[in-house]
Amino acid sequence: MKDLIIIGGGPGGMTAAIFAKRKNLNFSLLTKDFLGSVTKTNLIENFPGFEKISGKELIERMKKQLEKLGVEYKEGEIVKKIEKKEKFFEIKTQRSSYQAKTVIVGTGLLPRKLNIAGEEKFIGKGISYCTICDGPLFKERIVAVIGGGNAGGEASLFLAEIAKKVYLLEIEEKLSADETLQKKIKKNPKISVILKAKAKKICGKEKVEKLFYEKIDSKKEYSLKVDGIFIEIGGIPLVEILGELVDFNEKKEVIINHRTCMTKTPGLFAVGDITDIKYKQIVIACAQGAIAALFAYDFLKKDERN
Amino acid sequence: MKDLIIIGGGPGGMTAAIFAKRKNLNFSLLTKDFLGSVTKTNLIENFPGFEKISGKELIERMKKQLEKLGVEYKEGEIVKKIEKKEKFFEIKTQRSSYQAKTVIVGTGLLPRKLNIAGEEKFIGKGISYCTICDGPLFKERIVAVIGGGNAGGEASLFLAEIAKKVYLLEIEEKLSADETLQKKIKKNPKISVILKAKAKKICGKEKVEKLFYEKIDSKKEYSLKVDGIFIEIGGIPLVEILGELVDFNEKKEVIINHRTCMTKTPGLFAVGDITDIKYKQIVIACAQGAIAALFAYDFLKKDERN
Repeated sequence: MKDLIIIGGGPGGMTAAIFAKRKNLNFSLLTKDFLGSVTKTNLIENFPGFEKISGKELIERMKKQLEKLGVEYKEGEIVKKIEKKEKFFEIKTQRSSYQAKTVIVGTGLLPRKLNIAGEEKFIGKGISYCTICDGPLFKERIVAVIGGGNAGGEASLFLAEIAKKVYLLEIEEKLSADETLQKKIKKNPKISVILKAKAKKICGKEKVEKLFYEKIDSKKEYSLKVDGIFIEIGGIPLVEILGELVDFNEKKEVIINHRTCMTKTPGLFAVGDITDIKYKQIVIACAQGAIAALFAYDFLKKDERN
Repeated sequence: MKDLIIIGGGPGGMTAAIFAKRKNLNFSLLTKDFLGSVTKTNLIENFPGFEKISGKELIERMKKQLEKLGVEYKEGEIVKKIEKKEKFFEIKTQRSSYQAKTVIVGTGLLPRKLNIAGEEKFIGKGISYCTICDGPLFKERIVAVIGGGNAGGEASLFLAEIAKKVYLLEIEEKLSADETLQKKIKKNPKISVILKAKAKKICGKEKVEKLFYEKIDSKKEYSLKVDGIFIEIGGIPLVEILGELVDFNEKKEVIINHRTCMTKTPGLFAVGDITDIKYKQIVIACAQGAIAALFAYDFLKKDERN
């Protein structure tokens, strides 16, 4: 029986492990891999302490940190289900089973993809799923945003402050972003909205050069010369393993107590991008990991007393 | 008129500046100095991305990061008062005055004093509130640390590398430092832990010579021959400038919305050790800075729309 099982090898889970180790908890970190969505960010410029660092390097540094601290982690573990027993949790993976008094889940968000030709190839080479992370790299360049919801609308306005030109592509016949956002988009001379446009293909040599799209009414194909493409069509929280142990908001994000990171199930914590925190940022996920580990420790100590 | 004024040059304020800059806000960071309480930590082992780093080095790295980003900061500014006007805040410093639509305050903690006889008299003459600053002066001497939390625990281990003998006094019946720290303390032959010990009086001629303490159960008084006394019993939030714009808890910490870091006054945010977050950790202060800056941005955008 462990004190704690941490599920997920992203910044949230790894920082939880650092703090759990410092509290001398008996715990394991289970993760499919240490290649979460953070590693898709080519250049992080908003993590305190690092002027510039790639997502991959940050994750590698944190992994090394865990190793130096002597954290027990199991790579290649795919958690299938978390079950609540009377006094503990049972965590079932594809090959084993664990018992723990507390659980911290930081399984992250799977960015929703377009699933079109060229998309995989140019990730980090012009294709981004995180405007706030990568937008500043496109100063005075031409970019396209895919998705006319709030995320895409905000991304377009943010990019218009940086880039020379922003195309905002929406598959429906109108944007679904808030009216107030739409007004601003309309007023912004740098942004061109293209409605009823379905992205079809991304081309380039070393990096993104052209975006092809089809007008869904005429079925005609067009292309745009772009340096960057920001795909803002949402993400899918990886929360299936939680079953009914937590409550979800309308985005299928885990509702947590923001002071403690605890879910509605006592002893079960959630951190990072699966939570209902508005801004998905690395440093925020890290802090949530620290908070969850410290409150898991509190929870265990209270449990000992009872 | 600025979009934002950030007050405080610690991890919270500095991370707020990183995120505010990324949102292209028109803002300034005002701070007395960049020598907050973090720089008093000799060895940080729980900041994600750094296996080991000193507080001083982390702050220096962040300061360099601000400079690279082109953040406007004013060192040597001592904020005296924040006033709420109808549509903005007025921030009065010792030499100037600023107007801003939003404010983020991360002024940190002032080290707490024992308030016992001899304490004031011997400040700088054996009494210190900064182990990392003054510890090296006590090579091969006998010192006492007051306070058995993480700060006191870390101070004791640091001093054990320098001094001949370290007494660690804790008023409660056990230390509250992290388990890993407690293990190290126990193993260290130079450190003697004295529990249930209340510091009563500090005596000496020119400088500290003796520390008197009372055992809280037996009420008996004892004394220790010491050359230095390091007081590590927490801090007092520096919140006077906030006046009645915020609510405080019983520890005089600023009550915030933990999702947004906003105080009860719309547009006024608080971050870091002055807030009612239970665990005062560097990475948590950083995340609060990020959250406050992003919600300040939201607040400004909403304001523009109205």
